Amino acid sequence: MWQPDGVQTASTTALLRVMNERAVFAAVFRLGRASRPELAQLTGLSKPTVAVALTNLESAGLLRQTGSRAGSAGRSALLYEVRPEAGYVLAVDIGRAYVRTALADLVGDVVARVDDPACGPGADDLVAQLTRLADELTATAGITRADVTLAVFGTPGIHDEANGSLHLAPNLPGWEERDSLDRLAAVAGPAYTVENDVDLAAIGEATYGLGRDVPHFVYLHIGTGLGMGIVIDGKLYRGFRGAAGEIGYLPIGEGDPLLHRPGVRGRGMFESVASAAGLLATAQRFGLTGARSAKDVLDAARAGDGPARRAVEQEVEHLSRAVAGVAAVLDPELVVLGGGVGSHAGDLLTAPLLDRLGHLVALEPPRIEVSTLGGDAVLLGALASGLAAARDLVLDRAATA
Amino acid sequence: MWQPDGVQTASTTALLRVMNERAVFAAVFRLGRASRPELAQLTGLSKPTVAVALTNLESAGLLRQTGSRAGSAGRSALLYEVRPEAGYVLAVDIGRAYVRTALADLVGDVVARVDDPACGPGADDLVAQLTRLADELTATAGITRADVTLAVFGTPGIHDEANGSLHLAPNLPGWEERDSLDRLAAVAGPAYTVENDVDLAAIGEATYGLGRDVPHFVYLHIGTGLGMGIVIDGKLYRGFRGAAGEIGYLPIGEGDPLLHRPGVRGRGMFESVASAAGLLATAQRFGLTGARSAKDVLDAARAGDGPARRAVEQEVEHLSRAVAGVAAVLDPELVVLGGGVGSHAGDLLTAPLLDRLGHLVALEPPRIEVSTLGGDAVLLGALASGLAAARDLVLDRAATA
Repeated sequence: MWQPDGVQTASTTALLRVMNERAVFAAVFRLGRASRPELAQLTGLSKPTVAVALTNLESAGLLRQTGSRAGSAGRSALLYEVRPEAGYVLAVDIGRAYVRTALADLVGDVVARVDDPACGPGADDLVAQLTRLADELTATAGITRADVTLAVFGTPGIHDEANGSLHLAPNLPGWEERDSLDRLAAVAGPAYTVENDVDLAAIGEATYGLGRDVPHFVYLHIGTGLGMGIVIDGKLYRGFRGAAGEIGYLPIGEGDPLLHRPGVRGRGMFESVASAAGLLATAQRFGLTGARSAKDVLDAARAGDGPARRAVEQEVEHLSRAVAGVAAVLDPELVVLGGGVGSHAGDLLTAPLLDRLGHLVALEPPRIEVSTLGGDAVLLGALASGLAAARDLVLDRAATA
Repeated sequence: MWQPDGVQTASTTALLRVMNERAVFAAVFRLGRASRPELAQLTGLSKPTVAVALTNLESAGLLRQTGSRAGSAGRSALLYEVRPEAGYVLAVDIGRAYVRTALADLVGDVVARVDDPACGPGADDLVAQLTRLADELTATAGITRADVTLAVFGTPGIHDEANGSLHLAPNLPGWEERDSLDRLAAVAGPAYTVENDVDLAAIGEATYGLGRDVPHFVYLHIGTGLGMGIVIDGKLYRGFRGAAGEIGYLPIGEGDPLLHRPGVRGRGMFESVASAAGLLATAQRFGLTGARSAKDVLDAARAGDGPARRAVEQEVEHLSRAVAGVAAVLDPELVVLGGGVGSHAGDLLTAPLLDRLGHLVALEPPRIEVSTLGGDAVLLGALASGLAAARDLVLDRAATA
């Protein structure tokens, strides 16, 4: 598979026309509002070619004229922009406590947004809830579910496309069954994708967050679960079976008793000690009383409580071994911390983690920064992923219409 | 960096001509011997366009006619092939015990080959040795050093291009100094690349070995050193600073005393316990006497020696934690074992490793197979990497000549 021969050639007129329309459409997306001369310059196409493409894209309902701008020779140049209503993306983050949803038009403006407490683990209940939310969102936007170009569902676990099911998502019972994901078509039509939530968060960071200009980085989610999204050359890396970044299963923390109980294969060694529940359990074992969540442990550590501080130190020790492993394998430029613990404990984790890494890694440790996207990282990633795909879908549908 | 807009357009005549020549040249490489109709079919170009490209490539000395073949209409079709003498690649594997060199022509046929014991660690000695070997190789092939299109040097450590030096290569003292790599230009001219040896071995596997049809795999080198080459989507992944796959530094085996000695930062935790020297030291600690190399330990384990078998068990334990970590991060389809220990202990390592991994990883473990390229993996990778680059270089030089 090393550097396969890339045979690139000019081709037939029909293909050229499609390529040119695609190029003009992409250029209008990039420029926002654009004149024919600007589009000719950005695409390298001739002005007449650009004009033909614009006419076709406008009559397909994908672009529209939007006033004019004085040209250099004093003549006014017509401006074009993407028609926002040419497509819609439904983004869904199926979290353990909340279901977050957003509807965005084709230029990425969020036109409706609803969050809802998770209604329980049953697959049928979840589909009913998602369908109701989709109805709410489309009603707010004044469209129908048929107007949704594409839906993107972020879930825990790994999407097995061949099997139509989820692996490694013990919190979503029922979805591990063959073809169980097919019922998601009921929510907003047959055009949908299912993506790991942490992978979507990494896409969110790459598009809107700290990863914007960083070719190689990882997004480390530390919360109810533990996982990592990997961006390589600006693109999400999924691995052979979509299981890349499932670092909850790193062989770290073998002393934890959870590991040796039967039936806990679904929780990884690292997750069992370093997730929110792991941090809470450690603090309780060290003698912290009254804490009911990882947040309580973090607050107690900030207040100087001894057991809480020792639990945070142990969290740092576990995380440092994981990040050292990730650095040795991937050599990322940046590690973005996210998730309930990762987003809210930068003050307690980042400096000790870098200090500890200084003793574990071969070169300088990677930068470590706390996500600025907060609880919306998954949803934003779903939107970014969906918008990129929707742009192609509306073009393809216009071409075949 | 998520899915940047790819603006692809048809372009000017001059650029098209270069693109077309490149496409025809690549197609001839792929087909070996090819007629004009075959090339037109593979490239999608018109026969007259192919004819012009062939004429230009032939007069530039890059292609030659090679007889003819009966066409479908009974007319004979001229056949073209790459002129092997249009370029040469010098491949060098700077190992700890041996320097291996090969000279290949542009179609990849090895025209000369010399291996030599390493002459000692001094940088000047090494350059003198490499220059002598380059002279030997070119003399054998009947060319001069000026005829070498590109030299590819495989070395331990990480090539710091900005600094012109090597990091993490303690066995090559002197090369950590700024601009020290510049002297490699003396060996075969200014066109050369320096690449991590294990990364080259991974390219060798991807091109000629077990990785040929595997998009995502890793090459795990277990020998004097320990390292990993990562292939993602068929391409070598180097990381932010070229340090991807430096798994000798994985935080595994912290009990080893080597770690706590001052000045041993250059050796990683995992390497110190799981390399050939680590295996030997473990066996000796367990009571094996008389063994002088890792090979002796492996032979003793095969003969049923208790301490040797326990040392191999511990090697498996260390390797399983490393591979479990790699699987959790990268989810590769295949792990290729190479290096002195990796290549020669498949019978002792593979099955126990898979068994142990079954308890450590979330999904099924990746396939684990022993490299079939043996000691030539690095050299073959250097050739593959060099040939891909040389094909572009000879075209570029012909275009600017």
